[in-house]
Amino acid sequence: MAISFTLTARDERTAARAGTVTTEHGSFPTPAFLPVGTAATVKGVWPDQLREMGYGCLLSNTYHLYLRPGHERVRRLGGLHRFMGWDRSILTDSGGYQVFSLSSLRKVTDEAVTFRSHIDGSLRVLSPELAVSIQEALGADIRMALDECVEYPAQRRDVEEAVRRTTDWARRSLAASRREEGGLFGIVQGGMFPDLRKRSVEGVCALEFPGYAIGGVSVGEGTELQRETVALTAPLLPGDKPRYLMGVGTPADILYAVSCGIDLFDCVLPTRNARNGMMFTSDGPVVIKKAQYADDPLPPDERCPCPTCRTFSRGYLRHLYLQKEILSSMLLTVHNLYYYVRWMARIREAILVGYFDRFMKESLVLKDEKL
Amino acid sequence: MAISFTLTARDERTAARAGTVTTEHGSFPTPAFLPVGTAATVKGVWPDQLREMGYGCLLSNTYHLYLRPGHERVRRLGGLHRFMGWDRSILTDSGGYQVFSLSSLRKVTDEAVTFRSHIDGSLRVLSPELAVSIQEALGADIRMALDECVEYPAQRRDVEEAVRRTTDWARRSLAASRREEGGLFGIVQGGMFPDLRKRSVEGVCALEFPGYAIGGVSVGEGTELQRETVALTAPLLPGDKPRYLMGVGTPADILYAVSCGIDLFDCVLPTRNARNGMMFTSDGPVVIKKAQYADDPLPPDERCPCPTCRTFSRGYLRHLYLQKEILSSMLLTVHNLYYYVRWMARIREAILVGYFDRFMKESLVLKDEKL
Repeated sequence: MAISFTLTARDERTAARAGTVTTEHGSFPTPAFLPVGTAATVKGVWPDQLREMGYGCLLSNTYHLYLRPGHERVRRLGGLHRFMGWDRSILTDSGGYQVFSLSSLRKVTDEAVTFRSHIDGSLRVLSPELAVSIQEALGADIRMALDECVEYPAQRRDVEEAVRRTTDWARRSLAASRREEGGLFGIVQGGMFPDLRKRSVEGVCALEFPGYAIGGVSVGEGTELQRETVALTAPLLPGDKPRYLMGVGTPADILYAVSCGIDLFDCVLPTRNARNGMMFTSDGPVVIKKAQYADDPLPPDERCPCPTCRTFSRGYLRHLYLQKEILSSMLLTVHNLYYYVRWMARIREAILVGYFDRFMKESLVLKDEKL
Repeated sequence: MAISFTLTARDERTAARAGTVTTEHGSFPTPAFLPVGTAATVKGVWPDQLREMGYGCLLSNTYHLYLRPGHERVRRLGGLHRFMGWDRSILTDSGGYQVFSLSSLRKVTDEAVTFRSHIDGSLRVLSPELAVSIQEALGADIRMALDECVEYPAQRRDVEEAVRRTTDWARRSLAASRREEGGLFGIVQGGMFPDLRKRSVEGVCALEFPGYAIGGVSVGEGTELQRETVALTAPLLPGDKPRYLMGVGTPADILYAVSCGIDLFDCVLPTRNARNGMMFTSDGPVVIKKAQYADDPLPPDERCPCPTCRTFSRGYLRHLYLQKEILSSMLLTVHNLYYYVRWMARIREAILVGYFDRFMKESLVLKDEKL
């Protein structure tokens, strides 16, 4: 079954919109944040907990699953949903970002990218066709065409080359895709060059994908350049298809991107920061190891209804973190994922009820100070 | 409130018995297994999950909490129950076993034991009075008198000295205890010397404790000697008080000790083994990293109703373990703690219905082969 996207509401003063994505594994409302489950697990949480929080879609990493345990093994074990015990939607990335950020000795040709596994140093080749094949073996609901992700800063000619290749690979990905599965998204590149972003949109969006992603951001360019790039690129993407901003971001980054018309987000921030002892709260970040929390009987966020805040004190969470207890990562991850899911719910509510513009202005002023 | 113990049933052919322990934080049926929550957390599980499994009492370690985060800090944060989000009963050990197994440079006198913290090397002194004071600050429902735990093998004269000192310390612990709190248990030592066990029982049980523990086992003496010691010591303890075998053990060890009249157990096996990738199952141990499980779609234990077995395959659990994912420890710990709580329920059922003798014989034959 192909995925479908319906728009429910558009904000009058910004490009923000609210909608619903439907896949074979159910519907979820947008704007949506997708927790990252790199190796077929969102680190530190049970799938049941993600369901209870209200998440409708996860992201898992093609690159990692390709290397370990291998996509054919996942297929033999019933596909990624069965494998990781998650019956709602799954999006897999293309592997492009990881090949370019994690692996060594990579060599890109028009044909494919050759690289050494960051795990065992084995030589691997990832082509657009293989990336599609891996993701179809995994059974992901939303799959991404292989792209060439360029670091920042980059030479214009390198970005130009990546734009050309990404369009070519998008075409090959679509051709390699088994039609009846649907759900393959195209990715737009172009670095921080406005004309190359435009060129990439024209190339990729000329191909018939059910959704489009902005890739090549969150690669070290900083908030301002990222926002400029998103503001420029998002409105160029087809308005009737879901728009996905890959690897973004902070609550403030997400809010800003929603105002540009982005519908889908993923980011390691809530989960990775949790493992590093940082909690998102309505009063700004809490770094739990700080001595000031040693005797603090208050919950991390007094306005948060999550199971961590309902039960535990900052003093206890600091103790767990300093002791390197597994439960520290578990409790902080649940809290941060609650924070993100509630943040997305507030954004949607603001769009649906019609005060998104005001909500954004007030929040961004606050968030810029705090996050 | 003092703790109370009521006997519900006695087996006719063995010394096994079923009963109920009641503390200020509720009642739980015996024979009971207490999961170990060393640093105020049972590693890898939420307190809610322990409640759902049916555990009524946890153990936490006085030695560890004394060093980090400090008992006065736990008291300031509302006591151990509030601190760790556990509203059922808590038993704290005396600290004796850890001082003798974890710390260095220890020096025992009749007055107290002086040792270096295994965490920061700081010099510390633990006296019977301080051990009581720490445990009362923590607010544990069941607290243990400081004992001198002797390693195995040991010289007779060292064990004799430890028996004398343990009795003296038991007397001092009782004197230091604030009466209205109740719940202080005495510990019997005596190594593997039958006459010294008897002497220790006579000394400690002459003092009025609401429960008695057998300490100084599970220190490297092996199954046979442990069983002999338990078989010899348990019947010497008062029949109307709960009997607690400290640090034991495998499902088979527990079953045997129940037949000798033991009511309470604690052990790191289910939780520690889980983190090391070993699962207890009705078909014997499963070491999940084995290559044979790589493509195995079956649950770890087909007869187990735990959330891990209901949802995940051996293939997935092996993948998580090899990837060192946090979720590996979480899923295996929940499974093993389910295994133990169900094992205790089966033992109780056998006593209550009257087939414990047969159940034990059949199980021990099986378990000896498997565990």
